[in-house]
Amino acid sequence: MRPDDQRRAGIGYTVVPRTLVFLTRDDQILMLQGAPDKRLWAGKYNGIGGHLEPGESPYRSALRELREETGLVVESLALRAVIHITLPTPPGVVLFVFLGAAPVGEPTESDEGIPVWVEVTALSELPLVEDLPELLPRLLEPGPVLFATYFVSDEGLEIRFD
Amino acid sequence: MRPDDQRRAGIGYTVVPRTLVFLTRDDQILMLQGAPDKRLWAGKYNGIGGHLEPGESPYRSALRELREETGLVVESLALRAVIHITLPTPPGVVLFVFLGAAPVGEPTESDEGIPVWVEVTALSELPLVEDLPELLPRLLEPGPVLFATYFVSDEGLEIRFD
Repeated sequence: MRPDDQRRAGIGYTVVPRTLVFLTRDDQILMLQGAPDKRLWAGKYNGIGGHLEPGESPYRSALRELREETGLVVESLALRAVIHITLPTPPGVVLFVFLGAAPVGEPTESDEGIPVWVEVTALSELPLVEDLPELLPRLLEPGPVLFATYFVSDEGLEIRFD
Repeated sequence: MRPDDQRRAGIGYTVVPRTLVFLTRDDQILMLQGAPDKRLWAGKYNGIGGHLEPGESPYRSALRELREETGLVVESLALRAVIHITLPTPPGVVLFVFLGAAPVGEPTESDEGIPVWVEVTALSELPLVEDLPELLPRLLEPGPVLFATYFVSDEGLEIRFD
């Protein structure tokens, strides 16, 4: 449905709801090295996450994606950021970013990629997904839920934190 | 775009992103009595809110809706809940619910409805939007961000808090 059709149907602007989870253990953070055949961010390092499904809260969705992509079952996650990604053509994306402490046990890999423990101080040496050098340091500081807007255009990515 | 078409286009499930704000002052809460000609919830009492626009974070969107619907300019709001409303046909709705202290000054009305200060103890006497009797008491208690899923079907509304 094109934006004009959506407006006529009274639906308006829509977004794809997604989750992104970062688990920590001592001075390390769990990153997923994207599979080389992924449509987006092939080979890049990111947190763990995916699409929200109908009937699922962002919190439950984050726990499910963690389980599916790493085999890890986490007791609790904290919502740390909500990011609205505006794309050249709707729908946009709303990304719920969670932070949590890793449970005992090692992560296992899935079709999505390989989970890897990385020293926080070594993150800058990795090919990270583009927004993470700005986002991750803010996430790892305690504080209220962060809000940000990302603008994606032909000129690249522009990031604004509230 | 129908769900099947969306999946083929690689977009997947989408939601309409919305905000809902409750301002408090002493033992009162600011409710909006919906205009009688509104498409949804005509005449019912609800918080203040509306659609997220492209390029706008949920937080900025909430501040804008408050300004537009009540004339009030608020210093800060706290995210209190994220609600995923699953409808019989996509898109669903993701509702960002904020709580804040009212600034000095009286609210002014808009086309959306009439803002009214209501004693919290008198809320149960008003025709509230259907989920509020369950949601509001939880919102007014301090705590981490709440997550809930609402299921809307022919049988009515089913509410699940995480």
